[in-house]
Amino acid sequence: MTKIQPRTLKGFRDFLPSESILRQKVINSLRKSFEIYGFDPLETPALEYADILLNKYGEEADKLIYLFKDRGGRNIGLRYDQTVPLARVIAQYQNIIKPFKRYQIQPVWRAENPQKGRYREFIQCDIDIIGENSLLAEVEIINLVLRTIKKLGFSKAKMLINDRAVFKNFSPKVISSIDKLEKIGEGKVVEELKKKGVKNAKKIINQIKKIKPTKKIKDLFSLLSNFELKEGIDFTFSPTLARGLDYYTGIIFELIDDNYQGGSLGGGGRYDNLIGQFTNIDMPAIGFSFGFDRIIEIIKENRLLPEETTLSSIYIAYFKENRDVALRIAEELRKSEINTDINLNEERKIEKQLKYANKKGFKLVVIIAPEELKKQSVILKKMKKKEQIVIPLSQLNQTIKNLLTNYDY
Amino acid sequence: MTKIQPRTLKGFRDFLPSESILRQKVINSLRKSFEIYGFDPLETPALEYADILLNKYGEEADKLIYLFKDRGGRNIGLRYDQTVPLARVIAQYQNIIKPFKRYQIQPVWRAENPQKGRYREFIQCDIDIIGENSLLAEVEIINLVLRTIKKLGFSKAKMLINDRAVFKNFSPKVISSIDKLEKIGEGKVVEELKKKGVKNAKKIINQIKKIKPTKKIKDLFSLLSNFELKEGIDFTFSPTLARGLDYYTGIIFELIDDNYQGGSLGGGGRYDNLIGQFTNIDMPAIGFSFGFDRIIEIIKENRLLPEETTLSSIYIAYFKENRDVALRIAEELRKSEINTDINLNEERKIEKQLKYANKKGFKLVVIIAPEELKKQSVILKKMKKKEQIVIPLSQLNQTIKNLLTNYDY
Repeated sequence: MTKIQPRTLKGFRDFLPSESILRQKVINSLRKSFEIYGFDPLETPALEYADILLNKYGEEADKLIYLFKDRGGRNIGLRYDQTVPLARVIAQYQNIIKPFKRYQIQPVWRAENPQKGRYREFIQCDIDIIGENSLLAEVEIINLVLRTIKKLGFSKAKMLINDRAVFKNFSPKVISSIDKLEKIGEGKVVEELKKKGVKNAKKIINQIKKIKPTKKIKDLFSLLSNFELKEGIDFTFSPTLARGLDYYTGIIFELIDDNYQGGSLGGGGRYDNLIGQFTNIDMPAIGFSFGFDRIIEIIKENRLLPEETTLSSIYIAYFKENRDVALRIAEELRKSEINTDINLNEERKIEKQLKYANKKGFKLVVIIAPEELKKQSVILKKMKKKEQIVIPLSQLNQTIKNLLTNYDY
Repeated sequence: MTKIQPRTLKGFRDFLPSESILRQKVINSLRKSFEIYGFDPLETPALEYADILLNKYGEEADKLIYLFKDRGGRNIGLRYDQTVPLARVIAQYQNIIKPFKRYQIQPVWRAENPQKGRYREFIQCDIDIIGENSLLAEVEIINLVLRTIKKLGFSKAKMLINDRAVFKNFSPKVISSIDKLEKIGEGKVVEELKKKGVKNAKKIINQIKKIKPTKKIKDLFSLLSNFELKEGIDFTFSPTLARGLDYYTGIIFELIDDNYQGGSLGGGGRYDNLIGQFTNIDMPAIGFSFGFDRIIEIIKENRLLPEETTLSSIYIAYFKENRDVALRIAEELRKSEINTDINLNEERKIEKQLKYANKKGFKLVVIIAPEELKKQSVILKKMKKKEQIVIPLSQLNQTIKNLLTNYDY
């Protein structure tokens, strides 16, 4: 048979256990925060009819949607974000009780040019409130986002806030370029605007920089003070914040952390007209999307969470003649909900088993050997400390639980 | 603007909160079981090069893979299962420490004809052991699967077990039809075999039914007895079990529950040659895939888990003048990790807030009203019991925790 070269597509990634364990930990933390704040989960399909996806994000974005024909000749596309599918859901199931607070954590696909930190498949973590036009919805989202990200160790997280109303005299093409001011710098934005045929690019930028907070921004800031959140530290007005997507209509925001340069940790805003594209009835809506990959990158670079190569704490090694005892000991530990791995080949020499245990990164290894077993005991090895103790079988479960709780390994 | 009809593709589903909550609960339970048994998570991309996916599952299955060209003209396809991507990963990252025990819980896509219980997008929950040829790997998988499914309430779960070796004198086309004996009945299998040009279809079926367990099966059954698992009750030899996919090479199994008719809860087996298609070096491998949708369906039909419309236990309703107090009370509850929702529109009348709370299905509602607040108290309403009590603000957190723990609502 011809060999097939094992490889992944550019911009797509495998997550081996150590990476996947970390990602899952962060997802669990986000999920928990969202649920504490009264958000419930929603899932939508990876594939949608193409007309659901198109003409929502703007012309440039439409080119990045993975579109194709299925075997039935239907024009379909892969999920590009979670906001448009949410809007479709709200229009499709009109009996959903409103206000509707949902979170959604699923992959999205964008045919971008892959580069450092930018992928073609990535997880989005979204929270949205549908059917609420009060400014308290903005407050709820901003407060939740700041609490959530700080819990993950981002101590200098800050929300940049603007009101799309400040751009009412500017065209969409100006807005999408202004949004890049922080990312690519003023020089390149001026260039881009000129290419787009905008005259007085510099003047426009200066004009925008001098814009003062709208009344809505001021009201929002006053409400936020109820939550021990401080202007300048936790949130700040940013007149050059524009957000790229077409569908925003009111307050917009972007999350940064002063400790970490290089891009935002997420963004969002109000989009009161999007759902109307499906129903012809406007429905107030606001949401935020966490940039999961950027968050994971920073957590890894700064070791905000411990790295683990396996979720198993215990490995059971044994001599061939003690196989059945070993299998039963493993089963006992597992019944006590202790994550336990065990040698699955009785012919494997004990040295090889220990070598495996060492490479793999277990915290504790139980060695079941004939001599100790005669005395109803086993050897327990603390792998990092390179210590070993002999303990009675009857005390094994409790001893392991104590060692793990006290980080004594 | 023209209205776009909100709709989903045939065979694809939205999961609104009550459904998504249940699914997440089951996933958490599976994940926990897998981790207790020493399996670590792995994630692979939704899209793969087409040649990675093709010619692994069999001719019929290949027709069901979602294949298309991306914008760069590459032939790509959507994940069809999690076994082939795992094989690709093992070949691609040769420094992965073996034996390698991984679980994977991601959606897969198949362009099947949708019908009751069969979808074009569905979650697979897989466990696999790579690099272990000992029969203890089979034991580990079978034991874990039975423990896992019983924990979910499937008390009569049973593993049907066979050895692909019993079919060594039969062609692949016979095997794939034999596999349907339980599903479509003997009559239709005979018909199908005849259509395939197989003579003596009836005789072949009778021959297969009379096959005796191989030595490997007998050894496996003897090992399984170490785990309080009983032949006939927990596992049984089934000579007509064939499994559809091409890649199996040894022991194969399928999970059923005698309480629930209509198809298996999952299946798997040994596939020692699949990874070799990428590396030309054979690598022993064995795995099992849970039929997540079928499991969810049975759990719902038989109410094996409680149905919840929201994960929030508490809703905070308030009078306009008490808005800021209400916001701060909500924040306190949330700091105590109590899932709390709150009215986000101060102009909404209290009656409307309570109506919303009632429809939504919260367990407890806190009403913050001017009169009680003067006495530093709030009203706490038990929604199912239709009782309400007045309690001091200082006792609110503790009272709520007690009521929730004791199911007193």
